[in-house]
Amino acid sequence: MSDQNPRLVIVGAGFGGLRIARALRHASLRITLVDRHNYHLFQPLLYQVATAGISPEEIAYPVRAILRTQRNLQFKMAEVEKVDFSARIVSTSSGDLPYDYLLLAMGGETNFFGLSSVAQNSIGMKTLDDAVNVRNHILRMFETAVHEPDPVVRRSMLTFVIVGGGPSGVECAGALSELTRLVLVKDYPTLSIKDVRILLLEALDKVLPPFPETLREVAEKTLWNKHIEIRFGAEVADYDEQCVYLKGGEVIPAYSLIWTAGVTAVSLTRRLGLPLGRQGRIIVAPTLQVPARPEVFAIGDVAYLEDGQGLPLPMVATVALQQADTAAKNILHLLKNKPLENFIYDDPGSLATIGRSSAVARIGHFEITGFIAWFMWSVVHVYQLIGFRNRLMVLINWAWEYFLFERAVRLITPDPEKTKVVPPV
Amino acid sequence: MSDQNPRLVIVGAGFGGLRIARALRHASLRITLVDRHNYHLFQPLLYQVATAGISPEEIAYPVRAILRTQRNLQFKMAEVEKVDFSARIVSTSSGDLPYDYLLLAMGGETNFFGLSSVAQNSIGMKTLDDAVNVRNHILRMFETAVHEPDPVVRRSMLTFVIVGGGPSGVECAGALSELTRLVLVKDYPTLSIKDVRILLLEALDKVLPPFPETLREVAEKTLWNKHIEIRFGAEVADYDEQCVYLKGGEVIPAYSLIWTAGVTAVSLTRRLGLPLGRQGRIIVAPTLQVPARPEVFAIGDVAYLEDGQGLPLPMVATVALQQADTAAKNILHLLKNKPLENFIYDDPGSLATIGRSSAVARIGHFEITGFIAWFMWSVVHVYQLIGFRNRLMVLINWAWEYFLFERAVRLITPDPEKTKVVPPV
Repeated sequence: MSDQNPRLVIVGAGFGGLRIARALRHASLRITLVDRHNYHLFQPLLYQVATAGISPEEIAYPVRAILRTQRNLQFKMAEVEKVDFSARIVSTSSGDLPYDYLLLAMGGETNFFGLSSVAQNSIGMKTLDDAVNVRNHILRMFETAVHEPDPVVRRSMLTFVIVGGGPSGVECAGALSELTRLVLVKDYPTLSIKDVRILLLEALDKVLPPFPETLREVAEKTLWNKHIEIRFGAEVADYDEQCVYLKGGEVIPAYSLIWTAGVTAVSLTRRLGLPLGRQGRIIVAPTLQVPARPEVFAIGDVAYLEDGQGLPLPMVATVALQQADTAAKNILHLLKNKPLENFIYDDPGSLATIGRSSAVARIGHFEITGFIAWFMWSVVHVYQLIGFRNRLMVLINWAWEYFLFERAVRLITPDPEKTKVVPPV
Repeated sequence: MSDQNPRLVIVGAGFGGLRIARALRHASLRITLVDRHNYHLFQPLLYQVATAGISPEEIAYPVRAILRTQRNLQFKMAEVEKVDFSARIVSTSSGDLPYDYLLLAMGGETNFFGLSSVAQNSIGMKTLDDAVNVRNHILRMFETAVHEPDPVVRRSMLTFVIVGGGPSGVECAGALSELTRLVLVKDYPTLSIKDVRILLLEALDKVLPPFPETLREVAEKTLWNKHIEIRFGAEVADYDEQCVYLKGGEVIPAYSLIWTAGVTAVSLTRRLGLPLGRQGRIIVAPTLQVPARPEVFAIGDVAYLEDGQGLPLPMVATVALQQADTAAKNILHLLKNKPLENFIYDDPGSLATIGRSSAVARIGHFEITGFIAWFMWSVVHVYQLIGFRNRLMVLINWAWEYFLFERAVRLITPDPEKTKVVPPV
């Protein structure tokens, strides 16, 4: 690549960052992609790592392996500390990166809504560390409970509270129910399955808010069939590792709280000095440019843009992927002094799985449930995984699980350090 | 199982502990198997985890899944703290276990020979955490070196010193050479492969001491062909994370020291108050009983027994497996008041691999090298892995690696806590 070419720095190797890097592979740019990890994480399957279905290595793929053939790009594993928008310099934990164009695609993190006891004592579901922590914790609870003589304590150890009725919470609850009722029941024959409780707490009165009414009811019924106790209108006030305290006074004794109730843009956005919308997302123009900084773009979970109805675009992979395409085009237009395009979101629909042979899907105005939706979900997710080997490995694990009612990866490994959480302001 | 049956406590779910648990599955015993992990670890492939070839989950298998169908056994995940041999009680981190018979099979750990700076700053190769730490460290060195302007520092970052010319050290050196020369060279096109140095330090004047002379020479030649610098008569005196100091004054600047130079019985053996042989191993009679404690047996790496020539039996899996069979018979004989058998080791030979299509094997008086030995090594190791799924996964990863010159698992994940080391007395 020519030393004369303009420099583009992309922050984040998630869905959006990787997509735009690939889209600009023939551009006359010197691209630097920065991420604090050396891998791309396929977040939609995190809940399967958390419930011992697949191993962490199967949903993470080395960034250098993906972008190795791209000659106009270099990768840097580093933490971004700050950005000097006037001098056009990104400061990282391993040196400064000057830029001509900047694309921010750092993604989201768990939102604990300022509940510091929950942030400290519960486990989120956004990072690979989170998922491994959840897996270790669940299995450790069973290993401890099996030798616990006090029935009250034992029941607390086997009570798993999942907060959040969105796709993450629903998928996690469904998978956890199957892990306990199909697999762990065989591993711990002396434990009574009736001591195991899985609760799904939702502050509103519906699960899966982005889905149509009929699909939400199907999902709800499926969850009940899996012995998951759903509580609507349940808001967590406090958690001390032994009891969950709800607003209204109810107390649920539980040694496990899995928090999927909220997402916010990564905390870095709050330190950039840019105008923010809800959830700490950077306000962008329809061209995805940051106002007053035409050379700076933001996409995906870190970008705040409203749809035609005045609602913020959802923090999902499809938005990030489509915005990456628009941002790529607009950067090329800037290079050629052509007018920029506005981003318009084309909603491809929604998919969520609730366990074996069970899922709900909305594609346009079509609603699909049951085995066919589950099969679609599986195909879509395996197809999106990066790398043939990872696809094959995940398929083998799924087949294993499906036909043998077995989970392969129920290992208790050393706990990764808990992801540090900066409560949103 | 009857509450009247005698209680057998097995400490350790390694090769020996698992084998005897299985061997006694029809015995009229109440067996408790204790291990600090909930998985059995297939140690012979640790070096492949360390060099990003396979994922940790592929060489670990949940103990409960292995022994689920065994009705006279329960598993307890706990750390053994002490044993009261008079009262016949094993004290663990989660309660006391009274026993009528006790089998000690806790295995070995890394021996740093009292070199505290090495114990603190180097990485061993005995646990799953060790292997993940080595993998993370190697990849992190490459990620750092690629942005390091100072050529002297960069060379230190890319110098990997492996201590110990036994099978672990040789296998690790070979695999690391292939990882760097076949895979990482593509990931880091701006780094010069000539900056990468791999040194194998051996205190004696030969690699692979258990092998015959001719095979050792083949191995040595193969290592040189893989650009591994072998140093004979090299003894490490000190290591400060930047330089390796050898006895005799030589200093090797290196940010990485991988220590495979010694094994000792786990430190617990030193706290039991039993007579110990070399390497902290518990002295046992030829019946594998601890002297003066006929109800206590020790096998494998924690047992000290000499062969016909007065040499201690090697700390290898085959000894542990064969001793497990003898100990199982002797426990049954004790139950029936029959005379006990003496253990005689039947050496099946040795196998070590040095990389792609390259290995050395001794079976009886036969010596085999090259592709055939490598193929034998592969078959033997895949066959010994527990669980069809793990075998399949490892085979896929190997095929991947073999045909595509690719390593699948080169992720930098959070470092597990370094295994605590109690220097042997």
